[in-house]
Amino acid sequence: MRRLLRKVLTIDTMNANIKKVEYAVRGPIVQRAVQIEKELKEGVKKPFNEVIKANIGDAHAMGQRPVTFFRQVLALCSYPELLDDDKFPEDTKYRAQRILKACGGSSIGAYTASQGIECVRQDVSRYIERRDGGVPCDPDNIYLTTGASDGIVTMLKLLTAGEGRTRTGVMIPIPQYPLYSAAIAELGAVQLNYYLDEDKCWGLDISELQRSLQAASKHCNPRVLCIINPGNPTGQVQSRERIEDVIRFAAKERLFLMADEVYQDNVYAEGCKFYSFKKVLYEMGPEYFNTVELASFHSTSKCYMGECGMRGGYMEVINMDSEVKAQLTKLVSVRLCPPVPGQALMALVTNSPQPGEPSHAQFLKERTATLGDLAQKAKLTEEILNTVPGIRCNPVQGAMYSFPQITLPERAIREAKEKGQAPDMFYCMKLLEETGICLVPGSGFGQKEGTYHFRMTILPPADKLKILLSKVKEFHQRFTKCYS
Amino acid sequence: MRRLLRKVLTIDTMNANIKKVEYAVRGPIVQRAVQIEKELKEGVKKPFNEVIKANIGDAHAMGQRPVTFFRQVLALCSYPELLDDDKFPEDTKYRAQRILKACGGSSIGAYTASQGIECVRQDVSRYIERRDGGVPCDPDNIYLTTGASDGIVTMLKLLTAGEGRTRTGVMIPIPQYPLYSAAIAELGAVQLNYYLDEDKCWGLDISELQRSLQAASKHCNPRVLCIINPGNPTGQVQSRERIEDVIRFAAKERLFLMADEVYQDNVYAEGCKFYSFKKVLYEMGPEYFNTVELASFHSTSKCYMGECGMRGGYMEVINMDSEVKAQLTKLVSVRLCPPVPGQALMALVTNSPQPGEPSHAQFLKERTATLGDLAQKAKLTEEILNTVPGIRCNPVQGAMYSFPQITLPERAIREAKEKGQAPDMFYCMKLLEETGICLVPGSGFGQKEGTYHFRMTILPPADKLKILLSKVKEFHQRFTKCYS
Repeated sequence: MRRLLRKVLTIDTMNANIKKVEYAVRGPIVQRAVQIEKELKEGVKKPFNEVIKANIGDAHAMGQRPVTFFRQVLALCSYPELLDDDKFPEDTKYRAQRILKACGGSSIGAYTASQGIECVRQDVSRYIERRDGGVPCDPDNIYLTTGASDGIVTMLKLLTAGEGRTRTGVMIPIPQYPLYSAAIAELGAVQLNYYLDEDKCWGLDISELQRSLQAASKHCNPRVLCIINPGNPTGQVQSRERIEDVIRFAAKERLFLMADEVYQDNVYAEGCKFYSFKKVLYEMGPEYFNTVELASFHSTSKCYMGECGMRGGYMEVINMDSEVKAQLTKLVSVRLCPPVPGQALMALVTNSPQPGEPSHAQFLKERTATLGDLAQKAKLTEEILNTVPGIRCNPVQGAMYSFPQITLPERAIREAKEKGQAPDMFYCMKLLEETGICLVPGSGFGQKEGTYHFRMTILPPADKLKILLSKVKEFHQRFTKCYS
Repeated sequence: MRRLLRKVLTIDTMNANIKKVEYAVRGPIVQRAVQIEKELKEGVKKPFNEVIKANIGDAHAMGQRPVTFFRQVLALCSYPELLDDDKFPEDTKYRAQRILKACGGSSIGAYTASQGIECVRQDVSRYIERRDGGVPCDPDNIYLTTGASDGIVTMLKLLTAGEGRTRTGVMIPIPQYPLYSAAIAELGAVQLNYYLDEDKCWGLDISELQRSLQAASKHCNPRVLCIINPGNPTGQVQSRERIEDVIRFAAKERLFLMADEVYQDNVYAEGCKFYSFKKVLYEMGPEYFNTVELASFHSTSKCYMGECGMRGGYMEVINMDSEVKAQLTKLVSVRLCPPVPGQALMALVTNSPQPGEPSHAQFLKERTATLGDLAQKAKLTEEILNTVPGIRCNPVQGAMYSFPQITLPERAIREAKEKGQAPDMFYCMKLLEETGICLVPGSGFGQKEGTYHFRMTILPPADKLKILLSKVKEFHQRFTKCYS
């Protein structure tokens, strides 16, 4: 009776590492939020009219408008007959033609070189040189990727080796963006946590890196140090001095540096400035610049573009062993190439309209407005959350999120634990059910034992954000009272 | 002296599995072809003016035109201001609006659900139902993917478990499309070859499946059976009876079936017809339909669309254990979502213009012309290659390639081996250097010991293809004479 046989692929026979993978940003709370949206549609009565998904860094979904220039060029690339259309400014046509000329059969439907279209990699390298004040960038060190996530996973894959006590250890910040823990789990590498200091605005402490490394050395082979700057979920923007410290540490301890810089344009706080790891490395002189192995990652998903769905990204590899680089090139060839619309977009992001060009004024206006709007919302979020007794929010120096600490009454913590739920998940689930607001509990990102947080995006339009924040405030006060 | 220290990431310290990965379609011969293109550009004199890349199934690169309707809708999705433009037929606007409505903030720049936009999955499921004559398809069993390769790798990843003698064995056809061997190597699964029968037009033999399985059972845990239908590189189109045999075999031997059907519209030979594994499974009755675990894969890269660069794809999972499915859903969430332009394209491919709609006539004309053209070129290729003494080409029943067997003189075989080169690589390299034509040697796909082949696409325009084929003919005769 074949029907009584177990399936071939079951929870017991499947890849064991996959079971350990978690990704809170789209985890159980989001699944519940989607379910609630369906219930609302079906007419189920709730204390709210809509679900607000403040769980994910998706700017367009929250009403941010795409950059006109980018979309015009993408439309021209998709349907080149539009090149005859007067509606499009000359510079959009010029850009589209340049991209199409670099594509097989002049079509964005052709495969490209696996490393990415060469002229796009040249645009990227010139962007990096401009950004870093002239530090040379070789386009051959640029790999276009399917979002930054793709590049990050590819590098972790290359780096994961050994077995048991020689298994690769990967140092990641806590709190972290959970792609890192997910990739480490999937690859069966060893996750090594280093804690950011909440009392110092989520600052990075070299002595904490040291502690983490020391604790690790007995049970694995620590080889990688990951930094997210500006930070996710914490938003901190590293000072030049701190970046130098990290580089010195990585050089001394022989760690491969991975610098996730996808929020490099999202810097808001006074006195904060984005310094790329590449630039700081260069300025530390040849002893470092010629030796430290670094991979830096960028994306079209964040900053002022918000083009998450296009899956555009790149990584720059510095001081990569040439044999390993050949292996990397071979590895990416198996997946043929990153999506061409995303590659085209990366060309436009890194080679955007210049003064004097027809689209420049509009482009500048849109970019300035978007970044200014985000800066305002970062400040607004910090201010309002800090008016709530029991919520303490560090300045949102950069990126797109607040990650405030929440004080939970003992009774609530107990009830959560009885339910087998992380206390901040318990809190966020109640918030969702009572207000329709979807946030991600801090446990999804990691936090110091005994502390609780949530991550909330700063992306909704300012007026809606104010309403959200006031609802969170009300909820927190109600929750605190209820469980006291 | 830090500079004398070895790098952190070297060929010895990197992921050992990655070193075993090969992907001939973009391997050494293609790298040499790209180099030669550069040399031509620099004015180096060669016996030819251009490199013809007949190595890869990239239709647009070879001059095939995109489908107008698809590109119009993609342009409208990219830049919705065009919805006011009279140039676009009403049905393109309707389609674009439907897609945009399903996107966050009405933008293709927003992340989508990780499984893919729901209305697109509904389009895909209705396409499958129509294609299969009414066999029901649940949209929740559809996962949109970044090309078919993404889905294939994801499934192999889920399936790879165990260690040593219990390590997952994956049966693949020889010759195969080398994504399979590459993924198996990367995942550290066990590759189990079953040989297609060249004397029977690359037919699949159940006794050969049996032999392969038997040989495998002692050293691994065979759990997966991969079929490519229509075949790549071989082009054979499986009969219904053969598909039933395979299903019966998989059911009996408890193998998870993976059906790669990306060439499902590319069927040329008289008497050949595409039968989906899903449909045949259904028609074998509930004993099979309710039990056999199957994943079927499709893509926007082949057929009449040729939109390789868009990275659109889907997989349908049948009879997947529900706990495993939850794991699959969780796994794909880590990478957020497939590229939205590719998702949009899949909606249009699976829900293409209908009779009566403004774009229908043009669409039908383009699709018919493209598929007819391919059919002609398939026949042409077979005919011309079979006029060459020492080349024997099976009918190209489907897909996009010829995979003829080439007889090589003993002296050539010896010289190749002295060089440490596969004899067909030696042959193809010489062909490239002398004619500029880039093909992929059969050793890149696998072949019976002592036989040699090459894979050549049928994609160049017919007049160019004739020239190519005559050059290959000349070369083969010259090579044979030279090494006799």
